[in-house]
This record gives sequence, C-alpha cells and structure tokens, in this order.
Amino acid sequence: DAAAADQLKQLMADVAHEADVADLIEALDPEHRPIFIQLLGADFDFTALTELDENVRVQILEELPTETVVEGMRDLDSDDAVYILEDLDAEDRAEILDRLPVLDRAALLRSLDLPEESAGRRMQTDFIAVPAYWSVGQVIDYFRDAKDLPETFYEVFVIDPFYKLLGTLALDKLLRSKRQTRIEQILDSEVRRVAATEDQEEAARLFERYNLVSAPVVDENGRLVGVLTIDDIVDVIQEEAEEDIRALGGVGDEELSDRVPAIIRSRFPWLFFNMFTAFVAASVIGLFDGTIERMVALAVLMPIVASMGGNAGTQAMTVTVRALAAREISRRQAPRVLWREACVGLLNGGMLALMIGTVAGMWFSDLQLGAVIGVALIINMVVAGCFGVLIPLTLDRFKLDPAVASPVFLTTVTDVVGFFAFLGLAAWWFGIGF
Amino acid sequence: DAAAADQLKQLMADVAHEADVADLIEALDPEHRPIFIQLLGADFDFTALTELDENVRVQILEELPTETVVEGMRDLDSDDAVYILEDLDAEDRAEILDRLPVLDRAALLRSLDLPEESAGRRMQTDFIAVPAYWSVGQVIDYFRDAKDLPETFYEVFVIDPFYKLLGTLALDKLLRSKRQTRIEQILDSEVRRVAATEDQEEAARLFERYNLVSAPVVDENGRLVGVLTIDDIVDVIQEEAEEDIRALGGVGDEELSDRVPAIIRSRFPWLFFNMFTAFVAASVIGLFDGTIERMVALAVLMPIVASMGGNAGTQAMTVTVRALAAREISRRQAPRVLWREACVGLLNGGMLALMIGTVAGMWFSDLQLGAVIGVALIINMVVAGCFGVLIPLTLDRFKLDPAVASPVFLTTVTDVVGFFAFLGLAAWWFGIGF
Repeated sequence: DAAAADQLKQLMADVAHEADVADLIEALDPEHRPIFIQLLGADFDFTALTELDENVRVQILEELPTETVVEGMRDLDSDDAVYILEDLDAEDRAEILDRLPVLDRAALLRSLDLPEESAGRRMQTDFIAVPAYWSVGQVIDYFRDAKDLPETFYEVFVIDPFYKLLGTLALDKLLRSKRQTRIEQILDSEVRRVAATEDQEEAARLFERYNLVSAPVVDENGRLVGVLTIDDIVDVIQEEAEEDIRALGGVGDEELSDRVPAIIRSRFPWLFFNMFTAFVAASVIGLFDGTIERMVALAVLMPIVASMGGNAGTQAMTVTVRALAAREISRRQAPRVLWREACVGLLNGGMLALMIGTVAGMWFSDLQLGAVIGVALIINMVVAGCFGVLIPLTLDRFKLDPAVASPVFLTTVTDVVGFFAFLGLAAWWFGIGF
Repeated sequence: DAAAADQLKQLMADVAHEADVADLIEALDPEHRPIFIQLLGADFDFTALTELDENVRVQILEELPTETVVEGMRDLDSDDAVYILEDLDAEDRAEILDRLPVLDRAALLRSLDLPEESAGRRMQTDFIAVPAYWSVGQVIDYFRDAKDLPETFYEVFVIDPFYKLLGTLALDKLLRSKRQTRIEQILDSEVRRVAATEDQEEAARLFERYNLVSAPVVDENGRLVGVLTIDDIVDVIQEEAEEDIRALGGVGDEELSDRVPAIIRSRFPWLFFNMFTAFVAASVIGLFDGTIERMVALAVLMPIVASMGGNAGTQAMTVTVRALAAREISRRQAPRVLWREACVGLLNGGMLALMIGTVAGMWFSDLQLGAVIGVALIINMVVAGCFGVLIPLTLDRFKLDPAVASPVFLTTVTDVVGFFAFLGLAAWWFGIGF
C-alpha cells in the first residue's frame, strides 16, 4: 500500500488548492473518502474539509481514526478548526480537544464557548500585534525574523501593555513609511471593531458597509482577542442570502448531499402548516356551496382570483423581506410603502381585472359574471399588496424571521380574501344566497 | 451662503465614511440633495454616490452642474467612476468624459467598452506593477518615494517589459523578505487571473472558491490591465443572490426608492404570464363542471390538492435553482436528484394524504371522497417534486435563467395536475362523468 500512497501523493501534488481537493473528495464514493485521506497522510491539508458539505465532513470525521484528525487539526488556522469542531458531537469534540497542545486547546475552547453564529466563532486567533512605541523598522525586522507568523495578513494591530486595541496599521501604509517613523504616528485609531459575542450577520454588515478586508475582534474589556477576515465574511454573506431564499421557498438548511429522511425533516413542517391554510381556504368555499351548486362557473373561476392575489402578494412580500434584511426599511417609512403597494395593487389589479373580466364574461356568456370577478380581483390584489408589507413588518417587530413565516400567512390571507370576495360578491349580486 | 457652507463643512467633518454620507443624502428631500453636495463643494467625496440607490444617484447627477460632476469625478477610483458613468445616458456620459484628463478618459472608455456585468467593468485600473529583476529593497524604496500610489493595495504585480503578468507578490511576503532578495525569487507565479471580458459572476465564483482578496485582470493578450478587489466582489455576490430571490418572487430589479409606475413595469409582466396559467387551470376545472354540479364538495376541496402540490414543487424548485446557481448540480446527477424528489413527494404526500383524507372524509361524511383526495394528493406531490427539478434543469440547459421562469411553469403543472387528478379520479370513481 506504500506504493499506492506514493503514487497518490505524486498525483495530488498538482492539485494545489484545498477547494479543488474538496471537489475531488466529494466525487469519491463515501466509503473511499476516509481511505483517500489516510493514504495522503501528512500531505493532506485538513483545510479542505472546511470546503465540504456538512454531511460529507461529519461522515469523514467519524470514520477517520482520532489520531489522524488530531494530527490534521494541529496545522489548521483557529477559525477553520472551530468550523470543523462545531459540527461534531460533544464526545468526539472533547476527545480531539484533549489531545491538542494546551495553548491551541484554550483558544479553541474560548471560541467554542461563544454563541453559535457569533463573530467570535469565525475569528482567527492568530494575529500580529505590536506596541505603539515601536518604529516602522522594528516592525519590518520583526516580520523578517519571526518564525510563527500567520499565513497571510493584511494589517498589524497596535496594542497597549494590557492588550487593549489602540489602532491598526495597514501593510501598505507600513511599506510607504520611513524606517524611523514611530508606529503611534501612523496608526489608524478610528478602527471599526467587532465584539466577539456580536452576531456574525452584524459583522458582515459592517464589512459590506465600510468595504473592510479585516477587522479586529475584542472581548467585553476591549482587549484584542482575534481578527475577522473578509474570506470568512464572504461565506457569512452568502449563507444569509441563501437562508432567505430557502426560507421563502419553504426549505430548511438541507444540502444536495442529504438523504430522503433529512429532506423530509426539512420540508414536512412547512407543508404541514400550509395544510391548515388550505383547510381554512376550503372552509371559506364551503360557506358558499349552495351558491356554487347553482352557478358552477364560480367554481371554475375562483382559483384565478386566489392565485393572482397570491402572486401579487408574493411580489410585495419579497421586496419587503429583502428591505428588512438589508435594514433599508424603518417603521417610519411603513405608511409610505403601504400606500404605494395599495396603489400598485389597484393599478395592476385594474388592468388584469379588465382582461380577466372580459375573457370570463365571454367564456360564460355572462358580462355580469365578468364584472364580479373583476371587482373581486381588484379587492384581492389591493389587500394582497398591503398584507405583503404588513406581514413581514409585523413578524420582524416580534423578532420572528420574516422570510420563514411570511409565505404561509400571506397565502392564508390571499386565499381567504380571494374566495370570500369573489363568491360573496357573486352570491349577493346574483341573489343566490348561502 | 458662504457661512452656511462653512457650517455644513464643519458638521460633515465628523461623518467620516462615504457610506454614512450616502445615508445622510438619502434622508434628505430629493430637491435638497444636489444643493447639499454643492454646498460641501470640494469637501464632498463623490465615492458616496456609489453607495446610493441607482434612482437617487441618477437624479442627483442630472441636477448637478456638469463642472461639479467633472471636478468630483477627477478624484475617484476608476472602478467607482465607471460605476457612476454606466448608469448615465450616452449624452451626459460623453459630456463628462470630454472634460476629464486624457489619460483618465482613455482608461474609463476602455472599461466602458467592455460588456456590462463583465469583470473589466468592476476593475480598478490604478495598480502597482514592478519588474521581476528588482530587489525587495528597491520595491520598498519605490513605495516610500512614489507619490501617486493607489489608496490601498494588498499585493504587487510583477510584469515583463511588455506588461505581461509574471506573477504577484503579497505585501506580507514582501515584508518578511530580506532587502536584497530578488522579486523573481519570491513571486507567486500560480496566479488566478481574470479575463477583462469575463462575466463578473464567474470572477466572484473564483474569489469565493479560492478565498482571494484581489486578482489581476488581463486582456486577450495576457497583459495586465487592472485589478479586481474583494470589496467590489462582495457587491457582486450580493447582487447575484438578490437577483435570484427577486426572480423567484416575481419582481424585477426595483428599489425601495422606486415610484409606482416603475414598480408596475417591474411587476406586471409576471402577473400577466401567471394570468395565462390561471386560465389554463380554470379550463381544466371547466372540463368537470358537470361533476362539480352534482358533487359540490369537490369544488370545496380541490384548492387543497393544487396548493399542497404547489408548495411541494416550490420546495424542490428552490433547492434546484440554488444548486444550479452554485454550480453544484451536473446533468450526471439529475437522475439521482429526480429519484430522490419522487421519494420525498411520495412520503410527504403519503403522510399528508392520510391527514387530509381523514379530515375531508369526516367533513363530508364520505370516506370514499377522503380516499380520492388522498390519492390525488400523492399523485400531485410526486409530479410536483419531479417537475420542481426538471423545469429549472431544462431552462438552464436552454440558457434561460431558471429563477425567472421556473415559478410560472411550475404553478401551471401543479395546478393542472392537481385539478385533473382530483376531479378526474372523482368523476371516474363516483361514476359522475363529464
């Protein structure tokens, strides 16, 4: 097997980047993945594991011998190590941590103690900090001599003796300054810092807004504990957008590698809640069964009113949910947005009512029926536009995720109003009561 | 007015960052925005305009005197200048370009000649390039003496005399090397480069995959023409995710500052196409009007079958659309994914059929009716799951955007199959024909 391992190592020497190695692992049969990693031995960079789907990663880590995992974890950046450890169950995690060097273990435990999805979980604890009284020359000499610098870095942090952050110094600024310049003369003290316990989403918003590449992370006493870099933040930004798309589409955090039982767990709850919505809508129709029996055209046309309202509501809801996510909408603007959606509903509804009313009237040779469906459509589209704004705003005010819960509530409103407006109006107009 | 301007400048001295200035501008009345900028005069950083909504930016640029705009554009980074110019109409754009210094104009025109949404549109043409035979000391001395360096940079490019890119050199590597080291000894020649004409989305994928902070942009001859940095890419990543959410929700690229006519233009087309879907579904119901007339419970229950199918289909579609966007799904995997969705549809459908069938059967005191709705539900949910995968894959193969067109097609399928399966099955089982 030593020959096979050598051959494999030679082959893999060309696959330079961990993202490519990760693709290669995902292309393998599940049972071959741990074998592949063991064959590569010390040549396998555990960073590749962070690029895998969670399922694939957990499966591999469970099958690899603990000593292989511990060896691999030694060389990882602290943020990657936390990323891998946080998915494991408590027992496996403790076993690995126990065998790591004591300093690494302390740093990892500190990160893992922070809340999930906090900035501290994503931070790198390996960073460069220098005192303010050093000169530019001293810093550059330190870089040339120090052996254990982080792999890449974009700025140097300036601290006082108690590790309190005084400011930062970008590398390009350092390079442009004369050797004898003191750091305190050129440091940037207006640093946007992130609290370790802050939500990672908040940190991402700071990076986006101020076009940051890295930011210092401080503890509750203002002491520097780590650094967040843009590559971790890019992942956060993507995850957040992804979460909204999935929530609006009624799926949890399932992955393409998930098996059927996991998918069902992710999707069934949404379908279950929608079932109640469907029954509510059906019972509204049930109120008018006598009317429908005498005028079956109503049954044929009623889904049009409900579905057009649903679509218009979805449009307003999508815009509102995204504006909330981007913090673009405030309570102060709500009346203006609501009024605008009502106008849009009235105008779009009016145009569609004209078309749908005409077609329906000709289809059943009954122009009054055309007028009834037109009026019902306008009512439903105005209501849909308003609730498309009100539902996400209300959920947000009660600290619920608007993307998750809005669609179900919205469908309930547009179905109930659609069926009730159309069937009720028809029953009243044609005098065929309940 | 000079006093007012002075006062304003003093106030604004505290608002350091352009993102904050942009927020301030958006909070002003539209007619006050150009006045505010003119009062600030040379103290106003035009970069703030890139942080505004497109509508707000275009309105301001149209109202500002051309000389103010030209003055402001002089100090901008080239990528920000392109960002501002590309939204203007050809006439305004030409007027501004004409008055810019000849070198800036040439660089801007070259970027503007590239296709919209290409990497070249987002690149910065101001970068640092050094020859390979220089030493580390020479490069550092060059930084200390040069006056017109870009504002921030993370790496130095190494070129040959014909501006062909030989490699890159990260600043931290430069800082760690001895002064006498030659650049050619430490440059990184395995650079991931971006073609200027490449789609910005492709460039973003490269940044994400390889955790890049900046990347060189080359022309068709491999010559270095610019640099892409992560802050521009973060915007691209966000825009792309945003586009998918909006497309799935049936809205175009409308902004919160849009007025009613613009919103109607953005939303009416989707509603219009959905109207045809609604009529197709209605005509399926129309086939069974005789059946409904004799058994009005069918009209009450039929929306349940259609809407549960629609929801299940939306779940499968959402996952598929996102997998396509992330390039996670290949044609090779399609049969496996399809089979999995069919299983999920069968199992979720089975559970819901049991519940819905029981409730419906008891509601109308007709257990056979409960069985019929259960079977129709299972059929529709299996079909919905499969089409939720097939529709986006097919659109993608024909180079159409799956996020834009999938929802309409999917609704058509789930409505038609839902109504047809339920009403058809009922007509056959209860022997109440067409």
